[in-house]
Amino acid sequence: MSGAPDAVVVGIDVGGTKVLAVEVDSQGEVLRTARRETPGRLVDVRLVEDALTEALGDIAGGRPVAAVGLAAAGFVDREGERVRFAPHLPWRDDSVRGRLADRWGTTVALDNDANCVARAEAAYGAAQGVSSALVITLGTGIGGALLLDGVVVRGHHGMAGEFGHMQVVPDGQPCECGRRGCWEQYSSGNALVRLARAEVGRMPTILDELCGGDPDRLTGPMVSEAAEEGDLLARQAFGSVGDWLGVGVANLVAAFDPELVVVGGGVSAAGDRLLEPARAALGRSLVGAGHRDVPPIVRARFGPEAGAVGAADLARSLL
Amino acid sequence: MSGAPDAVVVGIDVGGTKVLAVEVDSQGEVLRTARRETPGRLVDVRLVEDALTEALGDIAGGRPVAAVGLAAAGFVDREGERVRFAPHLPWRDDSVRGRLADRWGTTVALDNDANCVARAEAAYGAAQGVSSALVITLGTGIGGALLLDGVVVRGHHGMAGEFGHMQVVPDGQPCECGRRGCWEQYSSGNALVRLARAEVGRMPTILDELCGGDPDRLTGPMVSEAAEEGDLLARQAFGSVGDWLGVGVANLVAAFDPELVVVGGGVSAAGDRLLEPARAALGRSLVGAGHRDVPPIVRARFGPEAGAVGAADLARSLL
Repeated sequence: MSGAPDAVVVGIDVGGTKVLAVEVDSQGEVLRTARRETPGRLVDVRLVEDALTEALGDIAGGRPVAAVGLAAAGFVDREGERVRFAPHLPWRDDSVRGRLADRWGTTVALDNDANCVARAEAAYGAAQGVSSALVITLGTGIGGALLLDGVVVRGHHGMAGEFGHMQVVPDGQPCECGRRGCWEQYSSGNALVRLARAEVGRMPTILDELCGGDPDRLTGPMVSEAAEEGDLLARQAFGSVGDWLGVGVANLVAAFDPELVVVGGGVSAAGDRLLEPARAALGRSLVGAGHRDVPPIVRARFGPEAGAVGAADLARSLL
Repeated sequence: MSGAPDAVVVGIDVGGTKVLAVEVDSQGEVLRTARRETPGRLVDVRLVEDALTEALGDIAGGRPVAAVGLAAAGFVDREGERVRFAPHLPWRDDSVRGRLADRWGTTVALDNDANCVARAEAAYGAAQGVSSALVITLGTGIGGALLLDGVVVRGHHGMAGEFGHMQVVPDGQPCECGRRGCWEQYSSGNALVRLARAEVGRMPTILDELCGGDPDRLTGPMVSEAAEEGDLLARQAFGSVGDWLGVGVANLVAAFDPELVVVGGGVSAAGDRLLEPARAALGRSLVGAGHRDVPPIVRARFGPEAGAVGAADLARSLL
C-alpha cells in the first residue's frame, strides 16, 4: 500500500483496436500517455505483447517502473491471472499476468476493462465515496460493473458485469455473441449507428452528406456531430439509445438498488442528450418508483482513459 | 452471537394472506409452528399486529422469548426498522420493528421475506458454504435475493432483489405493478395458471375436469396435479414457466456470476419438471456459455417455512 511517491505506475488498456498506456499519479491524474495499434486477434500473442511492451517503454522513458496494470477487453479469471476469452484479442485461457510480469520484471496486475473503468470512477471519479454504484460503459457495446463499498463485485468466476448481454427483447436483434435481443443491440454505439442507418433516405438529414450518400459509411461520431447540429434523425437515434439505456438500468436497479448510476464510454460524451431520456425511462420503468428513491444517473469523470486509469490504480494498490 | 441454548427464538412470516410463526433451533430445525389469517391490507395495523402477537403467544406457550424475527412481504428499509410499502399489508412507511419490540418486550428483527428465504438457505440450506448465490422464489410472483459470502446484498435503500419486475418483454403482459412485460408475468405461479387457462378448451386435458369446466377456477396446485398425472397441457405450462425461469436467470448470471442458483417457493415443488427446462434455457441463453462455468440450478431446502426460518436466524444473530 506504500511505494515511493515518485514510483512510475502505468495502466494499459488493451482494446480490440488500440493499446493505450498511461502514467497515473496517486491522485488519478494522467501524467503521460502512449498509444499503439492492437495487432489483432488472429496473430501470435507475442505480437500483441510486443505492442504493450513498446507502449510501456514509451511511458517509462528509461525510469524504473514500480507496477503495471492491464485492463483487457475480455473475460479475466477471478484471480486476475488469466485472460479466459477475449473476442478481439488472441489470448485464449492464457496466463497473461504472470508472463508479462516475468517479461517486464515488475509487478503486474490484470483485470477486465469494465472493472477497471469502475475502479477509476470509484477511486477518483463520479463514484467516489458512494456505498454502491452501477457503472455502465457505452461504447461499441455495453460494459459494466457493480461497485459495493468501492469494490468491484467480480462474481464467482470473475465474470460479473456482462450487462450488455442481458436479453431485453425475445427474438430481437441478432448480437455478435450469437444470441438475440441483447441489451447492447439497443443501447450502444452500434445501436446508434444501426438506428441512424435504417432511417437515412427516409427522412431529411445532414447524415446523407456526412456519410457521402452511403449509409454503410455512417459512424457513431457522425451521428453525434449531426445531433449536435440539431439534426432530427440523429437526435431521435440518441433518444432511442437513451431510452433503452434507462430501461436496462431500471432492470439492474430493481436487482441491485445502487445509490448511483454512472455512465461512461464513448457514447456518454453526448451527455444529457443520452442521459435525459435514460432518466425518464428509469423513472417510468423502475418498479415501485413512487415508493423509493430513484438513483441519479450521472456521467463518468473519465473518458477514453478510464480503463487505463483504473488499471493503474489496481497496480498501485499492490505496492 | 450467544444466548442460552434453550432460548426460544421465533420467526414470523407475514404474508398477504397468512401469518406463519415458527420456533427454530440453532440448527435450523423447526420445533413448533402456529398460523393465523392475515387480516388484510385495508384494516388498522393493530389488527395485523394482534394476529402476530397471537401466533407468537401460541409458539411461546408461556416460555420467555429471546428474540423474534419478522419476514415481511414488502419493501423494508436498509436498517431493518421500517416497512416502507407492502402491497398486501396495511403498513405504510411504518416503524414496525420498534413498535413490536416495545409491545413484546423482546429483541425484534425485521427484513423482507425474500431476504429471509435467502438467509435460511445460506445458513442451513442449499446455499450453505457457497461464496455467492442467487436465490429465486417462485410463488404467486418472483421474489429473490443475491447472497455474497452468505450475506444478503440489501442495496442502498434495502430494496435489492426485486428480480420479478425486471422487464423481459417490451409491451408484454400487464403486471400488477402497473407496468408490462415483467419477468414474473412469465415465470411464476400466476404465469402457470394464465398459460393453462389460455389452453383449456383448445386441447384435451384433465384440467377441464379439475376446474369443473370453468377455467377461471383453475389454480396452481391443479396444474401441478395434472402435470404429475402426465397431462400434456399442464406439462407444457411448466415447460414454459421453466424456460422463462432460465432466461431470466441467465440475465442475472450475466450480471452477477454467482456460484449457485437456488430456486424455492411453492412452484419449485415441481422439481425437475420446472428446473430441467430452466437449466436448458440457462445454457442456451447465458453469454459465453462455452467459455465459462454455468452455475447449477438447484432446489431450495426449505419450502413454505423458509421465510420464517430465515427470520428466526436473523433474530438469533442478534443474541
